[in-house]
Amino acid sequence: MNYPQSLINLIDQLKTLPGIGPKSAERIAFHILKSNSDLTDKLAQAIIDLKKKIRYCSQCFNLSEKELCNICDDSRRDKNIICVVENPKDIQAIERTRKYSGLYHVLLGKISPLDGIGPERLKIKELINRVEKQKPSEIIIATSSDVEGEATALYLGKILKPLGIKITRIAYGIPVGSSLEFTDEVTLMRSLEGRQELS
Amino acid sequence: MNYPQSLINLIDQLKTLPGIGPKSAERIAFHILKSNSDLTDKLAQAIIDLKKKIRYCSQCFNLSEKELCNICDDSRRDKNIICVVENPKDIQAIERTRKYSGLYHVLLGKISPLDGIGPERLKIKELINRVEKQKPSEIIIATSSDVEGEATALYLGKILKPLGIKITRIAYGIPVGSSLEFTDEVTLMRSLEGRQELS
Repeated sequence: MNYPQSLINLIDQLKTLPGIGPKSAERIAFHILKSNSDLTDKLAQAIIDLKKKIRYCSQCFNLSEKELCNICDDSRRDKNIICVVENPKDIQAIERTRKYSGLYHVLLGKISPLDGIGPERLKIKELINRVEKQKPSEIIIATSSDVEGEATALYLGKILKPLGIKITRIAYGIPVGSSLEFTDEVTLMRSLEGRQELS
Repeated sequence: MNYPQSLINLIDQLKTLPGIGPKSAERIAFHILKSNSDLTDKLAQAIIDLKKKIRYCSQCFNLSEKELCNICDDSRRDKNIICVVENPKDIQAIERTRKYSGLYHVLLGKISPLDGIGPERLKIKELINRVEKQKPSEIIIATSSDVEGEATALYLGKILKPLGIKITRIAYGIPVGSSLEFTDEVTLMRSLEGRQELS
Protein backbone atom coordinates (compact mmCIF):
# COMPACT_ATOMS: atom_id res chain seq x y z
CA MET A 1 0.00 0.00 0.00
CA ASN A 2 1.09 3.47 -0.82
CA TYR A 3 -0.62 5.09 2.18
CA PRO A 4 1.22 7.25 4.72
CA GLN A 5 2.78 5.28 7.56
CA SER A 6 0.34 6.38 10.27
CA LEU A 7 -2.62 5.27 8.14
CA ILE A 8 -1.00 1.88 7.49
CA ASN A 9 -0.33 1.58 11.23
CA LEU A 10 -3.95 2.10 12.16
CA ILE A 11 -5.18 -0.28 9.45
CA ASP A 12 -2.79 -2.94 10.75
CA GLN A 13 -4.00 -2.42 14.30
CA LEU A 14 -7.66 -2.57 13.30
CA LYS A 15 -7.08 -5.80 11.35
CA THR A 16 -6.19 -7.56 14.61
CA LEU A 17 -9.73 -7.01 15.93
CA PRO A 18 -12.23 -9.88 15.59
CA GLY A 19 -14.45 -9.78 12.52
CA ILE A 20 -12.49 -6.98 10.88
CA GLY A 21 -10.71 -7.84 7.64
CA PRO A 22 -8.42 -5.66 5.51
CA LYS A 23 -11.31 -3.97 3.67
CA SER A 24 -13.25 -3.09 6.84
CA ALA A 25 -10.06 -1.90 8.52
CA GLU A 26 -9.38 0.44 5.60
CA ARG A 27 -12.95 1.71 5.66
CA ILE A 28 -12.87 2.36 9.41
CA ALA A 29 -9.48 4.06 9.19
CA PHE A 30 -10.79 6.41 6.51
CA HIS A 31 -13.85 7.08 8.61
CA ILE A 32 -11.64 7.99 11.57
CA LEU A 33 -9.56 10.19 9.30
CA LYS A 34 -12.65 12.09 8.21
CA SER A 35 -14.25 12.40 11.67
CA ASN A 36 -13.49 15.41 13.78
CA SER A 37 -10.74 15.10 16.38
CA ASP A 38 -13.16 15.25 19.28
CA LEU A 39 -14.83 11.99 18.27
CA THR A 40 -11.60 10.13 17.66
CA ASP A 41 -10.09 11.32 20.94
CA LYS A 42 -13.16 9.90 22.66
CA LEU A 43 -12.67 6.55 20.93
CA ALA A 44 -8.97 6.39 21.83
CA GLN A 45 -9.74 7.44 25.40
CA ALA A 46 -12.48 4.82 25.71
CA ILE A 47 -9.99 2.11 24.73
CA ILE A 48 -7.43 3.33 27.26
CA ASP A 49 -10.04 3.76 30.03
CA LEU A 50 -11.45 0.29 29.52
CA LYS A 51 -8.16 -1.39 30.27
CA LYS A 52 -7.45 0.89 33.21
CA LYS A 53 -10.81 0.82 34.95
CA ILE A 54 -12.26 -2.64 34.46
CA ARG A 55 -11.41 -5.54 36.71
CA TYR A 56 -13.17 -8.66 37.94
CA CYS A 57 -15.60 -8.59 40.85
CA SER A 58 -13.74 -10.11 43.80
CA GLN A 59 -16.72 -12.30 44.69
CA CYS A 60 -18.25 -13.52 41.43
CA PHE A 61 -15.69 -12.53 38.72
CA ASN A 62 -18.21 -10.53 36.75
CA LEU A 63 -16.77 -7.39 35.12
CA SER A 64 -16.74 -4.43 37.45
CA GLU A 65 -15.19 -1.04 38.06
CA LYS A 66 -15.33 -1.52 41.81
CA GLU A 67 -14.34 -4.25 44.29
CA LEU A 68 -17.84 -5.78 43.99
CA CYS A 69 -19.88 -5.76 40.77
CA ASN A 70 -23.31 -4.11 40.52
CA ILE A 71 -25.09 -7.40 41.05
CA CYS A 72 -23.12 -8.60 44.10
CA ASP A 73 -23.46 -5.12 45.53
CA ASP A 74 -27.25 -5.01 45.08
CA SER A 75 -29.02 -5.73 48.38
CA ARG A 76 -32.25 -6.66 46.58
CA ARG A 77 -30.68 -9.73 44.96
CA ASP A 78 -31.44 -13.13 46.47
CA LYS A 79 -28.19 -14.27 48.06
CA ASN A 80 -29.44 -17.85 48.40
CA ILE A 81 -29.07 -18.77 44.75
CA ILE A 82 -25.87 -18.76 42.73
CA CYS A 83 -26.00 -19.20 38.98
CA VAL A 84 -22.71 -20.48 37.54
CA VAL A 85 -21.90 -19.21 34.03
CA GLU A 86 -18.91 -19.36 31.73
CA ASN A 87 -18.44 -15.71 30.87
CA PRO A 88 -19.58 -12.22 31.91
CA LYS A 89 -21.53 -12.05 28.62
CA ASP A 90 -23.71 -14.93 29.78
CA ILE A 91 -24.80 -12.83 32.76
CA GLN A 92 -26.18 -10.24 30.34
CA ALA A 93 -28.15 -12.94 28.52
CA ILE A 94 -29.73 -14.19 31.75
CA GLU A 95 -30.36 -10.68 33.05
CA ARG A 96 -32.28 -9.90 29.87
CA THR A 97 -34.89 -12.51 30.85
CA ARG A 98 -35.68 -10.41 33.99
CA LYS A 99 -36.64 -13.69 35.65
CA TYR A 100 -33.59 -14.31 37.79
CA SER A 101 -32.83 -12.35 40.91
CA GLY A 102 -30.06 -14.41 42.49
CA LEU A 103 -26.30 -13.96 42.31
CA TYR A 104 -23.80 -15.26 39.76
CA HIS A 105 -20.44 -16.93 39.64
CA VAL A 106 -18.36 -16.56 36.50
CA LEU A 107 -15.92 -19.39 35.73
CA LEU A 108 -14.09 -17.30 33.10
CA GLY A 109 -14.09 -20.20 30.66
CA LYS A 110 -15.00 -23.85 30.37
CA ILE A 111 -13.07 -27.07 30.67
CA SER A 112 -11.50 -27.70 27.27
CA PRO A 113 -8.62 -30.18 27.18
CA LEU A 114 -8.00 -29.45 23.47
CA ASP A 115 -7.22 -25.83 24.32
CA GLY A 116 -5.26 -26.88 27.38
CA ILE A 117 -7.86 -25.49 29.80
CA GLY A 118 -8.30 -27.74 32.82
CA PRO A 119 -10.48 -27.10 35.91
CA GLU A 120 -7.55 -25.43 37.69
CA ARG A 121 -7.59 -22.62 35.11
CA LEU A 122 -11.20 -21.74 35.95
CA LYS A 123 -12.62 -20.01 39.04
CA ILE A 124 -13.82 -23.32 40.50
CA LYS A 125 -11.73 -23.24 43.67
CA GLU A 126 -13.14 -19.77 44.34
CA LEU A 127 -16.67 -21.12 43.78
CA ILE A 128 -16.16 -23.89 46.35
CA ASN A 129 -14.73 -21.45 48.91
CA ARG A 130 -17.66 -19.15 48.33
CA VAL A 131 -20.25 -21.91 48.62
CA GLU A 132 -18.67 -23.20 51.85
CA LYS A 133 -18.71 -19.71 53.33
CA GLN A 134 -22.08 -18.40 52.10
CA LYS A 135 -24.01 -21.69 52.16
CA PRO A 136 -26.55 -20.86 49.39
CA SER A 137 -29.65 -23.02 49.10
CA GLU A 138 -29.26 -23.69 45.37
CA ILE A 139 -26.61 -23.61 42.68
CA ILE A 140 -27.81 -23.41 39.07
CA ILE A 141 -25.25 -24.60 36.55
CA ALA A 142 -25.78 -22.54 33.40
CA THR A 143 -22.78 -23.47 31.28
CA SER A 144 -23.43 -23.83 27.56
CA SER A 145 -24.73 -27.06 26.08
CA ASP A 146 -21.75 -27.82 23.84
CA VAL A 147 -19.29 -30.59 24.68
CA GLU A 148 -17.02 -28.42 26.83
CA GLY A 149 -19.93 -26.77 28.63
CA GLU A 150 -21.40 -30.19 29.38
CA ALA A 151 -18.08 -31.50 30.66
CA THR A 152 -17.76 -28.45 32.89
CA ALA A 153 -21.30 -28.97 34.23
CA LEU A 154 -20.60 -32.66 34.98
CA TYR A 155 -17.35 -31.78 36.71
CA LEU A 156 -19.01 -29.08 38.80
CA GLY A 157 -21.84 -31.43 39.75
CA LYS A 158 -19.40 -34.05 40.96
CA ILE A 159 -17.28 -31.62 42.93
CA LEU A 160 -20.19 -29.67 44.49
CA LYS A 161 -22.33 -32.66 45.48
CA PRO A 162 -20.40 -33.46 48.69
CA LEU A 163 -21.28 -29.99 50.00
CA GLY A 164 -24.90 -31.09 50.36
CA ILE A 165 -26.49 -28.25 48.41
CA LYS A 166 -29.23 -28.50 45.77
CA ILE A 167 -27.58 -28.36 42.37
CA THR A 168 -29.61 -27.82 39.19
CA ARG A 169 -28.83 -27.58 35.48
CA ILE A 170 -30.76 -25.28 33.13
CA ALA A 171 -33.27 -27.18 30.98
CA TYR A 172 -32.57 -28.56 27.53
CA GLY A 173 -35.32 -28.36 24.94
CA ILE A 174 -36.46 -26.88 21.66
CA PRO A 175 -35.82 -23.15 21.36
CA VAL A 176 -38.96 -21.01 21.48
CA GLY A 177 -40.21 -20.19 17.98
CA SER A 178 -38.42 -23.03 16.22
CA SER A 179 -40.13 -25.88 14.40
CA LEU A 180 -39.78 -29.55 15.36
CA GLU A 181 -38.93 -30.39 11.77
CA PHE A 182 -35.60 -28.60 12.01
CA THR A 183 -34.66 -29.57 15.55
CA ASP A 184 -31.79 -32.02 15.83
CA GLU A 185 -32.55 -35.41 17.39
CA VAL A 186 -30.42 -34.96 20.51
CA THR A 187 -32.20 -31.72 21.43
CA LEU A 188 -35.55 -33.36 20.73
CA MET A 189 -34.65 -36.35 22.90
CA ARG A 190 -33.64 -34.06 25.75
CA SER A 191 -36.79 -32.06 25.21
CA LEU A 192 -38.91 -35.21 25.56
CA GLU A 193 -37.04 -36.32 28.66
CA GLY A 194 -37.56 -32.94 30.26
CA ARG A 195 -41.29 -32.73 29.45
CA GLN A 196 -43.44 -30.99 32.03
CA GLU A 197 -47.10 -31.26 32.94
CA LEU A 198 -49.33 -28.55 31.53
CA SER A 199 -50.76 -26.43 34.30
CA MET B 1 -27.00 -3.38 29.65
CA ASN B 2 -25.60 -4.27 33.01
CA TYR B 3 -21.97 -3.74 31.99
CA PRO B 4 -19.61 -1.39 33.82
CA GLN B 5 -19.69 2.18 32.51
CA SER B 6 -16.32 2.13 30.78
CA LEU B 7 -17.29 -0.98 28.81
CA ILE B 8 -20.59 0.61 27.76
CA ASN B 9 -18.64 3.71 26.74
CA LEU B 10 -16.33 1.82 24.43
CA ILE B 11 -19.19 -0.19 22.92
CA ASP B 12 -21.03 3.07 22.20
CA GLN B 13 -17.95 4.56 20.58
CA LEU B 14 -17.32 1.48 18.45
CA LYS B 15 -20.93 1.45 17.25
CA THR B 16 -20.34 4.79 15.53
CA LEU B 17 -17.78 3.19 13.18
CA PRO B 18 -18.98 2.14 9.71
CA GLY B 19 -20.05 -1.50 9.38
CA ILE B 20 -19.98 -2.13 13.12
CA GLY B 21 -23.30 -2.92 14.76
CA PRO B 22 -24.09 -3.49 18.45
CA LYS B 23 -23.07 -7.17 18.37
CA SER B 24 -19.72 -6.54 16.67
CA ALA B 25 -19.04 -3.59 18.96
CA GLU B 26 -19.60 -5.82 21.98
CA ARG B 27 -17.38 -8.53 20.54
CA ILE B 28 -14.56 -6.09 19.78
CA ALA B 29 -14.84 -4.46 23.21
CA PHE B 30 -14.50 -7.86 24.88
CA HIS B 31 -11.55 -8.63 22.65
CA ILE B 32 -9.87 -5.38 23.70
CA LEU B 33 -10.65 -6.19 27.31
CA LYS B 34 -8.91 -9.54 27.00
CA SER B 35 -5.89 -8.33 25.01
CA ASN B 36 -2.82 -7.23 26.89
CA SER B 37 -2.39 -3.52 27.56
CA ASP B 38 0.49 -3.15 25.15
CA LEU B 39 -1.69 -4.04 22.16
CA THR B 40 -4.56 -1.78 23.17
CA ASP B 41 -2.23 1.14 23.85
CA LYS B 42 -0.91 0.69 20.32
CA LEU B 43 -4.43 0.79 18.92
CA ALA B 44 -5.36 3.93 20.88
CA GLN B 45 -2.08 5.58 19.92
CA ALA B 46 -2.58 4.71 16.25
CA ILE B 47 -5.96 6.47 16.31
CA ILE B 48 -4.49 9.58 17.94
CA ASP B 49 -1.45 9.61 15.64
CA LEU B 50 -3.54 9.31 12.51
CA LYS B 51 -5.42 12.52 13.19
CA LYS B 52 -2.28 14.35 14.22
CA LYS B 53 0.08 13.32 11.46
CA ILE B 54 -1.97 12.99 8.30
CA ARG B 55 -2.71 15.91 6.02
CA TYR B 56 -3.27 16.43 2.30
CA CYS B 57 -0.38 16.74 -0.14
CA SER B 58 -0.16 20.44 -1.04
CA GLN B 59 0.14 19.64 -4.74
CA CYS B 60 -2.22 16.73 -5.45
CA PHE B 61 -4.32 16.36 -2.25
CA ASN B 62 -3.37 12.75 -1.76
CA LEU B 63 -2.94 11.74 1.90
CA SER B 64 0.51 12.48 3.22
CA GLU B 65 2.55 12.98 6.35
CA LYS B 66 4.74 15.58 4.67
CA GLU B 67 4.21 18.69 2.54
CA LEU B 68 4.36 16.54 -0.62
CA CYS B 69 3.02 12.98 -0.81
CA ASN B 70 5.22 10.00 -1.70
CA ILE B 71 4.10 10.09 -5.32
CA CYS B 72 4.58 13.82 -5.95
CA ASP B 73 7.93 13.58 -4.19
CA ASP B 74 9.14 10.66 -6.33
CA SER B 75 11.50 11.88 -9.05
CA ARG B 76 10.95 8.73 -11.13
CA ARG B 77 7.29 9.57 -11.78
CA ASP B 78 6.36 11.06 -15.14
CA LYS B 79 5.41 14.67 -14.44
CA ASN B 80 3.79 15.05 -17.85
CA ILE B 81 0.65 13.10 -17.06
CA ILE B 82 -1.87 13.93 -14.36
CA CYS B 83 -4.57 11.43 -13.51
CA VAL B 84 -7.60 13.05 -11.85
CA VAL B 85 -9.38 10.87 -9.27
CA GLU B 86 -12.14 11.42 -6.73
CA ASN B 87 -10.49 10.09 -3.58
CA PRO B 88 -7.12 9.02 -2.18
CA LYS B 89 -8.41 5.43 -2.18
CA ASP B 90 -8.70 5.55 -5.97
CA ILE B 91 -4.97 6.23 -6.17
CA GLN B 92 -4.34 2.92 -4.41
CA ALA B 93 -6.56 1.13 -6.92
CA ILE B 94 -4.66 2.58 -9.88
CA GLU B 95 -1.27 2.03 -8.24
CA ARG B 96 -2.12 -1.64 -7.82
CA THR B 97 -2.19 -2.01 -11.62
CA ARG B 98 1.54 -1.02 -11.70
CA LYS B 99 0.88 0.36 -15.17
CA TYR B 100 0.71 4.07 -14.40
CA SER B 101 3.75 6.13 -13.58
CA GLY B 102 2.40 9.67 -13.84
CA LEU B 103 1.13 11.98 -11.11
CA TYR B 104 -2.34 12.32 -9.62
CA HIS B 105 -4.79 15.02 -8.64
CA VAL B 106 -7.39 14.20 -6.02
CA LEU B 107 -10.66 16.14 -6.22
CA LEU B 108 -11.73 15.03 -2.73
CA GLY B 109 -15.22 14.19 -3.95
CA LYS B 110 -17.43 14.43 -7.00
CA ILE B 111 -20.06 16.88 -8.17
CA SER B 112 -23.30 15.84 -6.50
CA PRO B 113 -26.07 18.43 -6.41
CA LEU B 114 -28.26 16.17 -4.27
CA ASP B 115 -25.64 16.23 -1.49
CA GLY B 116 -25.04 19.93 -2.05
CA ILE B 117 -21.57 19.39 -3.52
CA GLY B 118 -20.87 21.77 -6.40
CA PRO B 119 -17.61 22.18 -8.34
CA GLU B 120 -16.45 24.89 -5.93
CA ARG B 121 -16.31 22.33 -3.10
CA LEU B 122 -13.82 20.18 -5.03
CA LYS B 123 -10.13 20.80 -5.72
CA ILE B 124 -10.87 21.90 -9.30
CA LYS B 125 -9.54 25.44 -8.99
CA GLU B 126 -6.31 23.95 -7.67
CA LEU B 127 -6.21 21.56 -10.63
CA ILE B 128 -6.52 24.42 -13.12
CA ASN B 129 -3.81 26.44 -11.38
CA ARG B 130 -1.58 23.39 -11.38
CA VAL B 131 -2.20 22.61 -15.05
CA GLU B 132 -1.51 26.22 -16.05
CA LYS B 133 1.74 26.21 -14.12
CA GLN B 134 3.07 22.73 -14.89
CA LYS B 135 1.71 22.37 -18.43
CA PRO B 136 1.38 18.55 -18.51
CA SER B 137 0.97 16.87 -21.88
CA GLU B 138 -2.06 14.79 -20.85
CA ILE B 139 -4.79 14.77 -18.23
CA ILE B 140 -6.56 11.46 -17.62
CA ILE B 141 -9.96 11.84 -16.00
CA ALA B 142 -10.49 8.76 -13.84
CA THR B 143 -13.63 9.64 -11.91
CA SER B 144 -16.07 6.78 -11.33
CA SER B 145 -18.66 5.83 -13.92
CA ASP B 146 -21.74 6.57 -11.85
CA VAL B 147 -23.95 9.61 -12.54
CA GLU B 148 -21.96 11.97 -10.31
CA GLY B 149 -18.60 10.75 -11.57
CA GLU B 150 -19.78 11.22 -15.16
CA ALA B 151 -21.04 14.72 -14.43
CA THR B 152 -17.71 15.57 -12.83
CA ALA B 153 -15.84 14.21 -15.86
CA LEU B 154 -17.99 16.23 -18.26
CA TYR B 155 -17.52 19.37 -16.20
CA LEU B 156 -13.76 18.88 -16.04
CA GLY B 157 -13.59 18.24 -19.79
CA LYS B 158 -15.43 21.49 -20.52
CA ILE B 159 -13.36 23.55 -18.14
CA LEU B 160 -9.97 22.08 -19.09
CA LYS B 161 -10.44 22.13 -22.87
CA PRO B 162 -9.59 25.86 -23.30
CA LEU B 163 -6.14 25.15 -21.85
CA GLY B 164 -5.25 23.22 -25.02
CA ILE B 165 -4.09 20.03 -23.35
CA LYS B 166 -4.93 16.46 -24.36
CA ILE B 167 -7.72 15.25 -22.09
CA THR B 168 -8.67 11.58 -21.90
CA ARG B 169 -11.25 9.54 -20.00
CA ILE B 170 -10.57 5.99 -18.79
CA ALA B 171 -12.27 3.37 -20.97
CA TYR B 172 -15.72 1.90 -20.35
CA GLY B 173 -16.25 -1.77 -21.01
CA ILE B 174 -17.01 -5.15 -19.58
CA PRO B 175 -15.02 -5.95 -16.45
CA VAL B 176 -12.37 -8.63 -16.92
CA GLY B 177 -13.65 -12.06 -15.94
CA SER B 178 -17.33 -11.24 -16.22
CA SER B 179 -19.72 -12.83 -18.68
CA LEU B 180 -21.61 -10.92 -21.39
CA GLU B 181 -24.83 -12.52 -20.23
CA PHE B 182 -24.78 -10.60 -16.98
CA THR B 183 -23.44 -7.29 -18.28
CA ASP B 184 -25.96 -4.47 -18.32
CA GLU B 185 -26.85 -2.98 -21.71
CA VAL B 186 -25.31 0.45 -21.12
CA THR B 187 -21.93 -1.04 -20.26
CA LEU B 188 -22.18 -3.35 -23.26
CA MET B 189 -23.05 -0.44 -25.54
CA ARG B 190 -20.08 1.55 -24.26
CA SER B 191 -17.92 -1.52 -24.62
CA LEU B 192 -18.93 -1.86 -28.28
CA GLU B 193 -18.35 1.82 -28.95
CA GLY B 194 -14.91 1.62 -27.42
CA ARG B 195 -13.86 -1.52 -29.33
CA GLN B 196 -10.22 -1.73 -30.29
CA GLU B 197 -8.37 -3.49 -33.05
CA LEU B 198 -6.71 -6.73 -32.04
CA SER B 199 -2.97 -6.42 -32.37
